[in-house]
Amino acid sequence: MSISAEIDFQVPDQKAIILAASRIKNYINQTPVFRSDTFDKRFGCELLFKCENFQKAGAFKSRGAVNAVFSLSEEELKNGVATHSSGNHAQALARAAALRNTKAYIVMPETSPKVKVNAVKHYQGEITFCKPTLKAREESLKKIINDTGAIEVHPYNNLMIIAGQATCAKEIFEGHDHIDQIVAPVGGGGLLSGTALSTNYFSSKTTVVAAEPEMANDAFKSFYSGTFTPSANPNTIADGLLTSLGSYTFPLIQKYVDRIVTVSEEAIVEAMHLIWERMKIIIEPSAAVPFASIIENKINHKSKKIALILSGGNVDLNKLPWK
Amino acid sequence: MSISAEIDFQVPDQKAIILAASRIKNYINQTPVFRSDTFDKRFGCELLFKCENFQKAGAFKSRGAVNAVFSLSEEELKNGVATHSSGNHAQALARAAALRNTKAYIVMPETSPKVKVNAVKHYQGEITFCKPTLKAREESLKKIINDTGAIEVHPYNNLMIIAGQATCAKEIFEGHDHIDQIVAPVGGGGLLSGTALSTNYFSSKTTVVAAEPEMANDAFKSFYSGTFTPSANPNTIADGLLTSLGSYTFPLIQKYVDRIVTVSEEAIVEAMHLIWERMKIIIEPSAAVPFASIIENKINHKSKKIALILSGGNVDLNKLPWK
Repeated sequence: MSISAEIDFQVPDQKAIILAASRIKNYINQTPVFRSDTFDKRFGCELLFKCENFQKAGAFKSRGAVNAVFSLSEEELKNGVATHSSGNHAQALARAAALRNTKAYIVMPETSPKVKVNAVKHYQGEITFCKPTLKAREESLKKIINDTGAIEVHPYNNLMIIAGQATCAKEIFEGHDHIDQIVAPVGGGGLLSGTALSTNYFSSKTTVVAAEPEMANDAFKSFYSGTFTPSANPNTIADGLLTSLGSYTFPLIQKYVDRIVTVSEEAIVEAMHLIWERMKIIIEPSAAVPFASIIENKINHKSKKIALILSGGNVDLNKLPWK
Repeated sequence: MSISAEIDFQVPDQKAIILAASRIKNYINQTPVFRSDTFDKRFGCELLFKCENFQKAGAFKSRGAVNAVFSLSEEELKNGVATHSSGNHAQALARAAALRNTKAYIVMPETSPKVKVNAVKHYQGEITFCKPTLKAREESLKKIINDTGAIEVHPYNNLMIIAGQATCAKEIFEGHDHIDQIVAPVGGGGLLSGTALSTNYFSSKTTVVAAEPEMANDAFKSFYSGTFTPSANPNTIADGLLTSLGSYTFPLIQKYVDRIVTVSEEAIVEAMHLIWERMKIIIEPSAAVPFASIIENKINHKSKKIALILSGGNVDLNKLPWK
């Protein structure tokens, strides 16, 4: 699959996102937006933290997974759904499939942390372990789909997934006016594309900023060069952001996102620690990346009203990065 | 000061608690109540978690401190306020004093963790260090009061403090009907007395349960013997609950609390870990004690609707009990 910057597909329109929001409403949390006087004073701006760490299965991924699975007919679902993922999409898809009484086949690298394997099992996902390479994951998934007839639900390069993730920003704009900037983390780009579409439809004066780890900066490079440039050896503590953009997400980001900034590993850890310590909430490293961009002064935040998406809270409590 | 089970003072009445709520309203957070489907399913009951970890200065203590300080006149406040505390009351009192533009003299043991010392400094408290004994703390405080004319604001044995802490349960009952039981942790008994009074006034059919660490079980012993029995060598991870009851809190608890149960150290750590992992919020060990009583099956929780007060979230992120 070659990945170009051109949009040669039907972009989810405003109606598709409104439909996604109503489709998933009963199966996800409308997560709260938290504020911190301490942070506002310290950084001289108004920060809104959208708490997707409180989302079902612990991350925004439940929005897309529920939207994708619930848009399929019973006939389409009869052989289940399948994906390869060692992360939050795996749990979210297993949960969404269970809600529709169908199977979820999840291909996971045999090196996956036990806490993630257990989470998928908790939602009755059927796990197939494979070698920890992209090739092994793809081959293993292909075989399962051939054998079972399950439908693939890709973690981000899927328009129903993107429309589902778009409901997060939509909720923010429903509750809050006059937001100058919205900042989302970027890995494969599902959340970011959805955020950019919702901003375009529901709050068109808001600037869309993506925050990415310097150590996994494929989106940054692709965006500013105009040519898809996958990460060579991504290596960041933000383990949800290791993936590169896809054939849907790259052109959507190229068109609808205003800026991409990168942040250091140190700033990610500092941002995560500050949020834990001051806001008393648990977020995973990937979720700290937007706040890291404020700490490192990468976006023009002074006197602005800025929404930051805290994308998830699934972290191994026995392996904290400041120990 | 001898401590008897008799009430020989004016108990804060319903009006006093309503007045406290309106007095502190603009200076504290009306904290949210969180739910967890996972826990409700697992324990077969309906649990409401009152999130005082999201309270100003990180604990319910801000309610009492603001109520006490804001009930004093400018004349009374002109020489400041004073207390000895190494915990959450110290921060809360320093913050409340700063809001009234007066000084807070805080006596802290020289062994206090740096994180707590810094928190008091953050709110401009004037710290005096002393040897880590109760005698040294009391003598040091007495000297400061003599020298400065500051007014003592005791962490729990003070009726304005108790009326302030009572506003927490009042908020719960305003948002939620038909609560079968309310569970508060007990240390010095300020939160528990206030909770019991509010339950008596605003939700009289609700049973009031106190949860206490087995390793600091003075309230349990005092309550069931009817005679004040201070802890000999309290030693619990729940460092907010090391203190013993006072001359106001013991008789109030004796009259208005229905039951006191004790929990093991293991259950406290397990409860804290579960809440972090599943609810994605940070609570301190003392705040986990009520949930530990559910885990250890110490209260009759099956099929009941139970409010648990998560009393605070001030914890040293570098010293977690499961490492």
